Amino acid sequence: MPQAHIAYDDRTLSEWIGAEEKDAYRANVALAEEMLQKGTGQGNDFTGWLDLPKRVSGDEITAVNDKAAELRDKSQLLICIGIGGSYLGARATIDFLSASFEDLRSPRVVFAGHQLNSDYLDDLRKLFDKNDVVVNVISKSGTTTEPGVIFRIVRQWMESRYGKQEAAARIVATTDPQKGALRKLATEESYATFSIPGDVGGRFSVLTPVGLFPIAYAGIDIAQLVAGAADAMSLCGGSDLETNLSARYAVNRNILFRRGKTIEMMASLQPQLHYVAEWWKQLYGESEGKNLTGIFPAAADYTTDLHSLGQWMQEGLRNVFETFVVLKNVATSWTVPEFDSDDDGLNYLKKQSLEYVNDNAYKGTLLAHLDGDVPASTLTLDTRSPETLGQLFYFYEKAVALSGYLLRVNPFNQPGVEAYKRNMFALLSKPGFEEQGAVLQQRLRGIGL
Amino acid sequence: MPQAHIAYDDRTLSEWIGAEEKDAYRANVALAEEMLQKGTGQGNDFTGWLDLPKRVSGDEITAVNDKAAELRDKSQLLICIGIGGSYLGARATIDFLSASFEDLRSPRVVFAGHQLNSDYLDDLRKLFDKNDVVVNVISKSGTTTEPGVIFRIVRQWMESRYGKQEAAARIVATTDPQKGALRKLATEESYATFSIPGDVGGRFSVLTPVGLFPIAYAGIDIAQLVAGAADAMSLCGGSDLETNLSARYAVNRNILFRRGKTIEMMASLQPQLHYVAEWWKQLYGESEGKNLTGIFPAAADYTTDLHSLGQWMQEGLRNVFETFVVLKNVATSWTVPEFDSDDDGLNYLKKQSLEYVNDNAYKGTLLAHLDGDVPASTLTLDTRSPETLGQLFYFYEKAVALSGYLLRVNPFNQPGVEAYKRNMFALLSKPGFEEQGAVLQQRLRGIGL
Repeated sequence: MPQAHIAYDDRTLSEWIGAEEKDAYRANVALAEEMLQKGTGQGNDFTGWLDLPKRVSGDEITAVNDKAAELRDKSQLLICIGIGGSYLGARATIDFLSASFEDLRSPRVVFAGHQLNSDYLDDLRKLFDKNDVVVNVISKSGTTTEPGVIFRIVRQWMESRYGKQEAAARIVATTDPQKGALRKLATEESYATFSIPGDVGGRFSVLTPVGLFPIAYAGIDIAQLVAGAADAMSLCGGSDLETNLSARYAVNRNILFRRGKTIEMMASLQPQLHYVAEWWKQLYGESEGKNLTGIFPAAADYTTDLHSLGQWMQEGLRNVFETFVVLKNVATSWTVPEFDSDDDGLNYLKKQSLEYVNDNAYKGTLLAHLDGDVPASTLTLDTRSPETLGQLFYFYEKAVALSGYLLRVNPFNQPGVEAYKRNMFALLSKPGFEEQGAVLQQRLRGIGL
Repeated sequence: MPQAHIAYDDRTLSEWIGAEEKDAYRANVALAEEMLQKGTGQGNDFTGWLDLPKRVSGDEITAVNDKAAELRDKSQLLICIGIGGSYLGARATIDFLSASFEDLRSPRVVFAGHQLNSDYLDDLRKLFDKNDVVVNVISKSGTTTEPGVIFRIVRQWMESRYGKQEAAARIVATTDPQKGALRKLATEESYATFSIPGDVGGRFSVLTPVGLFPIAYAGIDIAQLVAGAADAMSLCGGSDLETNLSARYAVNRNILFRRGKTIEMMASLQPQLHYVAEWWKQLYGESEGKNLTGIFPAAADYTTDLHSLGQWMQEGLRNVFETFVVLKNVATSWTVPEFDSDDDGLNYLKKQSLEYVNDNAYKGTLLAHLDGDVPASTLTLDTRSPETLGQLFYFYEKAVALSGYLLRVNPFNQPGVEAYKRNMFALLSKPGFEEQGAVLQQRLRGIGL
């Protein structure tokens, strides 16, 4: 068994979930595990993430690292263009492992094409003007509106500053191995490219070049990230509820959901986990939120949000369960100074580390929320390391697949994401959508828009 | 009637909420309005925010602006220390009105004491070393753990770099007018001070010096922010459901809640609204989440989160309603370039502004979510201006007060926030909590912690 850098402790759920209730899930977990491994479940053409950590070869890692190093040599800033699953994995990893303030990061990765705000783009232009820049555009098709539009603009910036040839040498496209608009453009323009495996969906793609290239550019050891995920395969495998961490988590949330706990709060105890929670929200919301069912994934950053959502968590509607995510060790150890005048009454904490205080805030909150009838369990992470995060990624991916099958939905599609796109295309008079456009325009007039 | 910079359009709710159903609320709204104005409702000693925008005097504004200008002259960085309501109003305002990347902001405000992460503090120290620094510590009592502990450390940094006297000249304390540890310390050390009115709770305090001082330091026109809020008083006043914007919003959410819509999604269409949504989450979660009831306040940033929570919003469990927050005008107007080779198929958008595309993304999403059985309405804001934001702040404050009274809870207390604190004090062996500490330690051992 490889060394576990994550632990899932659900003993605190025993008040809500009995042994017999769990036992009733054993056969279902075994079935879900079999559906995944044998590819007999819905969405089985998108389960490439399942053994991905062991399929990523040393050569692939080297190719990504080499390109990242080459581009780092001539830049301080990577503009990473992508949305959804082409954005959140890299952002989560970089934020988890980097300095709290972006301008302390060197090299620095900034994101674009994940929204269409003009003022944001204008500010990005100011960063562009101050730095030597390289670009990574990430899109399976190359036609997604947000990254497509922003890449058009950023490509013009690049070509205007560097000329067509050097701009091309500074742009990396991560896209479909053969087909699609971005693949075609990359071939025409001689961009360096990386391929997105066809059997890995966007929200499961952090360990493909989608995530790995920007993460490598940021100076993070991607081999360790992948190795962590590979180690997690055994920690999160098998149909034994006691030893398969992901299965335990999946079963617990399924039981709590059917009991009316329709919101899961992922409560991080460290701000570095903020975008890991955003990644988790996509993974869970998009995998389970369909067929008019699915737990609502919410996140909070404690202790700051104890002074915000904390009141609702403690005494609001009891339709929530909570998963704390705790980091055992941070990198530094600032302590509370002793002051002669103890006006603020904090001398009782003198010489204690901030993390000691924070850890007791976690424990105090856990007990308070349990007492407040919030079923709560805890994921513990070792350190701010790529291995630890790799294990956490795989744990969550495996768990959502099992959880989706337990809920009897297809965890690997996202049909609902098309609805707003179709309407937007119609309203923007995209060729082919004209008829629908007229209908929608009329509806909008009907509501005064 | 003053000029409205915000509009609330709920015609899209007509499918869910009939005229008769609304009519039944008229007497209750009038009662709630009366309870507020006459101070006969629960929490009536904390309704000072109600006429605050008209009570803030020109002298007060000048005093805040003068101090801010004086400190700006000798610094590039303000470290603003506070948590919850002593943090979110300033952060929301500064983020709404400033550049997207913090290092493009000059002068710059960074926040601390809103959590206890050691690595964050270590990174803050690096910013400290690079800048001339001033400090604003915000705490009614001066004994709250997070800001108290961090202020001890930052005060040492300041005194060690500048000496005791100059450090004191660079520290502003915002606290209780008479009592408490921070007031006492400020008097002893001759810090400049601002007072927090006793009848305004933390989450309603953005227009007191709690918010105004850091906002003024950031170079934002606080007179306009306050004037916007003052204008909103008539837009959000009276017991007439048709003309009182806040009352309409409060009634709609109350009706939807009793129908099983237990989550409200505040969906912003611009990233500059991200922390406004965080401010809103505190205001609503803390005001309503009590007595085992209360809508869960959630937020998303569209369009990016349409590729995350969008799937759940479109097709998940139907226990959600949505309030879009749309900004009509941003400051810049980047457009989509035309490319000869239209590989990405985006030439149909050529020369259109990003905001035009984004606006149609909003409209397309609104229609898609209505079709997906999500009751949705829209708040529209004019521009990224202090007046607009002032109106929005007051609109939400007034609405949550009415909404709380309609739900029959005290919207002005937060008893549940004490639960984690008491446990934390006990676990940290704070003097006076020793006995409780022993009990909790035993419970923790029982669950293996």
